[in-house]
This record gives sequence, structure tokens and C-alpha cells, in this order.
Amino acid sequence: MIAKTPPAPYYAVIFTSIRTDGDNGYEAMAEEMDKQAKQQEGFLGVESARNELGITVSYWKSLEAIKNWKANTDHLVAQKQGRDAWYAHYKVRICKVERDYEF
Amino acid sequence: MIAKTPPAPYYAVIFTSIRTDGDNGYEAMAEEMDKQAKQQEGFLGVESARNELGITVSYWKSLEAIKNWKANTDHLVAQKQGRDAWYAHYKVRICKVERDYEF
Repeated sequence: MIAKTPPAPYYAVIFTSIRTDGDNGYEAMAEEMDKQAKQQEGFLGVESARNELGITVSYWKSLEAIKNWKANTDHLVAQKQGRDAWYAHYKVRICKVERDYEF
Repeated sequence: MIAKTPPAPYYAVIFTSIRTDGDNGYEAMAEEMDKQAKQQEGFLGVESARNELGITVSYWKSLEAIKNWKANTDHLVAQKQGRDAWYAHYKVRICKVERDYEF
């Protein structure tokens, strides 16, 4: 469940969100987006947890891979539904992972 | 609960972890570390969520601020207890946040 990423440098998208109440089709779309992201060129892994706050970190080979995923047609639809129905507030941070270590 | 960080660039430490069973003093130490991190020079904010996987992202002004927090005496004790008792596995990723946007 901790993403097995290659040696740094690589990229991370930190997506932090507060959900609205109710499902409104969220779970089905989240599953579909998870599936599609994993098939995307340059996808390296994803980690996710949610209490009141949700944090999803996806890992990517390059900024170009992140840009391509952001522009994916189905993902654009999901992004719009996200703003219209699922999220009260979110923040996206695009990062370069400069080093990492583990235990 | 979504950290109000300043305009990029700034730095993020993504700490992803799997806990061991039982508290073993974890909650009290986590609270204390949260309190101390917030007093640290260059601390910008923190976001946290846990299901099976825990994700804590702390935000910092500089790599030096991250280094100073890692070397904080009480934090060194917590890091050792983390490896000895609280975490089955963890990964730390040091990142430069290059841009961000929000809704």
C-alpha cells in the first residue's frame, strides 16, 4: 500500500480534499479514475487515506505525464463533477520528489 | 484542515506509514510532535489522514527547515520509538512543491 516508487527524482501530485455529503456517484468514478490513472504512461503509484480530510498522492515519471493525465478526457469529466458535486474544497500540489528513504 | 500554504515554491515532506497494533504511547507522542513541529522555524502547515495507510504531509519554507526538524532532539527520540514500536513500515519523501491550485 506504500507505493513502490523508483529512485528519486520523480514527481508527486498531492491532492488534499474535503468531501461534500453523500456519494452522488463518487465511489464509482473514483474507482474508474484509479483504474485509468494506473494505465497512464508514466504512472508510478498512488497512496490514499481519508478521515474528514482526504489525501491522495499519485506519483509520476515526469511533469509531462502529469499534464497528460490532467488532460485525459474522462478525467476532465471527473474533474468537473468533482467541482460540481463531490468536493467542498480541494488543493492540488505538483511536486518534484528530490529524495526519499524508508523503514 | 487543508493547509494554507504560501505561493510556491516551498517544500513538502510526505510521510506514508503502516502502524503496528496497539497504541504503545503513540498518540501522546504524535500530539507532542505536532505541537513542536508547529513551533519550528520555517513550518508552514500539516495535513494528515489515516485508514490502514497513514499519510501525513508537512510543509516547510526550505530544505534547511526540514533538516533542522529532523535533527530536533525530541523528534530524534520519536523517530527511534517509531522504528522500535509504532511503525511496521514507512516511507519519507522530500519534495519541492513547484506549483499549486485550489477549488
